[in-house]
Amino acid sequence: MQTRVLTGITTTGTPHLGNYVGAIRPAIAASRRPDVDAFFFMADYHALIKSDDPARIERSRLEIAATWLAAGLDPNKATFYLQSDIPEIPELTWFLTCVTAKGLLNRAHAYKAAVDKNVETGEDSDAGITAGLYMYPVLMAADILAFDAQQVPVGRDQIQHIEMARDIAQRFNHIYGRDFFVLPEVVIEEQVATLPGLDGRKMSKSYDNTIPLFAGGSKQLRETILRIVTDSRTPGEPKDPESSALFTIFHAFASETESMAFRRALEEGIGWGEAKQVLYERLEADLAPMRERYENLMARPADIEDILREGARKARAIAGPKIAALRDAIGLRSMSSLSSMAAGKPRQAAKTAKPPRFASFRDSDGSFRFRLFSSEGDELLLSKSFKDPKEAGGVQRRLKTLGGAAATLHSLPRSLVLELDGEPIATAPDYADDMERDEALTYLRAALDLLAEQEKSE
Amino acid sequence: MQTRVLTGITTTGTPHLGNYVGAIRPAIAASRRPDVDAFFFMADYHALIKSDDPARIERSRLEIAATWLAAGLDPNKATFYLQSDIPEIPELTWFLTCVTAKGLLNRAHAYKAAVDKNVETGEDSDAGITAGLYMYPVLMAADILAFDAQQVPVGRDQIQHIEMARDIAQRFNHIYGRDFFVLPEVVIEEQVATLPGLDGRKMSKSYDNTIPLFAGGSKQLRETILRIVTDSRTPGEPKDPESSALFTIFHAFASETESMAFRRALEEGIGWGEAKQVLYERLEADLAPMRERYENLMARPADIEDILREGARKARAIAGPKIAALRDAIGLRSMSSLSSMAAGKPRQAAKTAKPPRFASFRDSDGSFRFRLFSSEGDELLLSKSFKDPKEAGGVQRRLKTLGGAAATLHSLPRSLVLELDGEPIATAPDYADDMERDEALTYLRAALDLLAEQEKSE
Repeated sequence: MQTRVLTGITTTGTPHLGNYVGAIRPAIAASRRPDVDAFFFMADYHALIKSDDPARIERSRLEIAATWLAAGLDPNKATFYLQSDIPEIPELTWFLTCVTAKGLLNRAHAYKAAVDKNVETGEDSDAGITAGLYMYPVLMAADILAFDAQQVPVGRDQIQHIEMARDIAQRFNHIYGRDFFVLPEVVIEEQVATLPGLDGRKMSKSYDNTIPLFAGGSKQLRETILRIVTDSRTPGEPKDPESSALFTIFHAFASETESMAFRRALEEGIGWGEAKQVLYERLEADLAPMRERYENLMARPADIEDILREGARKARAIAGPKIAALRDAIGLRSMSSLSSMAAGKPRQAAKTAKPPRFASFRDSDGSFRFRLFSSEGDELLLSKSFKDPKEAGGVQRRLKTLGGAAATLHSLPRSLVLELDGEPIATAPDYADDMERDEALTYLRAALDLLAEQEKSE
Repeated sequence: MQTRVLTGITTTGTPHLGNYVGAIRPAIAASRRPDVDAFFFMADYHALIKSDDPARIERSRLEIAATWLAAGLDPNKATFYLQSDIPEIPELTWFLTCVTAKGLLNRAHAYKAAVDKNVETGEDSDAGITAGLYMYPVLMAADILAFDAQQVPVGRDQIQHIEMARDIAQRFNHIYGRDFFVLPEVVIEEQVATLPGLDGRKMSKSYDNTIPLFAGGSKQLRETILRIVTDSRTPGEPKDPESSALFTIFHAFASETESMAFRRALEEGIGWGEAKQVLYERLEADLAPMRERYENLMARPADIEDILREGARKARAIAGPKIAALRDAIGLRSMSSLSSMAAGKPRQAAKTAKPPRFASFRDSDGSFRFRLFSSEGDELLLSKSFKDPKEAGGVQRRLKTLGGAAATLHSLPRSLVLELDGEPIATAPDYADDMERDEALTYLRAALDLLAEQEKSE
């Protein structure tokens, strides 16, 4: 039994060494566990809240996807996708918006912090705050709930958002009377390794003290390491490893044996310049092969896009049926299912009682077409255009006589093409994957057989 | 030059005579003007704000669609669709959410009224208010802006929402530096005919004084008319037409000549009972043929669904390209377009310089497939599964030799199937309509020709 673990990746900015050690490396390591079904998504709908710079969002999505892939994210094992490739997410966001108490959103830390800042500076409390910032927790709930994610690893600052996702899910489950959503569990990353930056404070873009992960290549890495602040001890003087950013960074990459050797060297008075060279070489040993993969990926953005699209396909194979079930639950149902209600019969009876049927119509160009609907009212086929309505009727009669077996079906990816006497005459709707298509094929054959039986008995 | 006029129809409740006279009849009349490009949509995403009763939403959508069609809405002239059939609407809602000032939403009348009520009763100001009610104006802006609607006819109580849609559109246009959105104009329905209800007050469900439009048939209509409150004047006594609900309702349906005759009859002392019979007969003359159409439609919900789906197809043919342009503007762009940026070249150059290309991949079932991408990085083809990667490679080489002309294309609705030696080998993505498919066919042929040319020159 696998646990579905979902991780959102923000898509503003360029990753630095601290991001790698604190977030990327542990998340990828966790995703390789056999008991984990890992979902990683690039949160580009969220990015719109923080950034209205299109070039930055565009560039950042690419860099961050390349970084995670270069760092070892295996898209064949994990489901890796762009949030904005999943149309089910904004739709679910609206469904959840309608059950979310406004009072809940008022209590969100990020929103309250923005309000407090406004109040402090004497501004109107909502000055400069967008609805995007305010609605962030609902979008995040949709990200999680669309995939029935069981665990969401987050930092302490994000715990409240997961609690809100649980609240919103419970509210929805309560209103619509069934456990539609899995309640996600917070997994708190207590042991997040934070790296010190150039000045010894936590490495963070906001302190402008970061060491780049790949940007600028080995040259930039070396030059930045040389800028790490040290004390003024000269070569020969013993140095304290525990108070040195150099040692902490080294330790985050090295084995225990390597770390012990470096500790001893510092205690024995290695010069800071030489120590920086040791650190650079240790980092470069890990980063060089990744950087090469990164640069190869960055040179082929279309390949990254292919990987993300394939991930979106896998993700939508889960979110699609999920949202379809929710639509049904809240009343956005196929109208066909109502035909029996209109006649005062219970709904279930119609599903078995109604035969499949053809529906002819005139197209906007004046030609004639028909559709085939299943008993449940799902569209199974759409015919090509016929100039003559009699021809279209003739094809329908032939199909009614022949049934599913006699009609040849060309089964291609995404599509079903129905052939009659070797001529393609109709297509079925598009399918997300082969499994869905094969299922549709079974339904289509059954429907045609049913029609043929009916025809015989009449 | 047509003006695009967009009308949203709420989908809770069952239409009554007041809805027909005040909203349905004038909107349909306006939609028949040759200078009007009318869009009508059933606002079922909005309905979720007001109702968490799925059966009611389901039933109401059907009844209201049948009512408008029975009342003469011509789906071949107007674009008539379900809001929830347009996935572009929730996505645009999120884009607009990110540019909407929270302060703007705080000023919405509907929200403020709910807050005032809470404050009056000593409740927490946001008690019982959902995020759905609060975000309503943003969803409404998306409804309008997705289709570049130029005019939105609304009652006075909705003016503010149109002003907000304009505000939000202007803000987006300003941030992203171009006039992406048409600013919708309010058309105030000053002359909305309001009908009196059974008790003489405005006919409204909230007063429980309505006359049903179709529900219960002619029998129910007659019985309800008999319940209209009158004064106690006896037959023979002159009656005042101006103060009688009977006359006002009659007048809303009758010609001037008919109205004058009825006025005279009242002034000359016709009994209330008889007057009610006159009113019933006049209404029934208009309503009976509509009611018959309504009942026929209600018996065939699948046909109503077909009409609405066709409407959604027309609507999405506009909203789809619109949202694609917006995604590009805000940075949610195809990554393929970045390949030249990564190499430091300007973006435009890549579009002409890069050749189309095949991309092979291994499917989850272990078989081999390939895709064909255009110079712009759009997917043109997805091949069937090949067991042997060499076979897949052979087909790619054949296509490169043959070019677009030699490959036979079966052009079916929604689908393109590429044949090689009479065997279907690949499909193109699904298309919304024939026009889009034909355009794709042109691109596909051009790409294959380009590949063939390249092959020759190598």
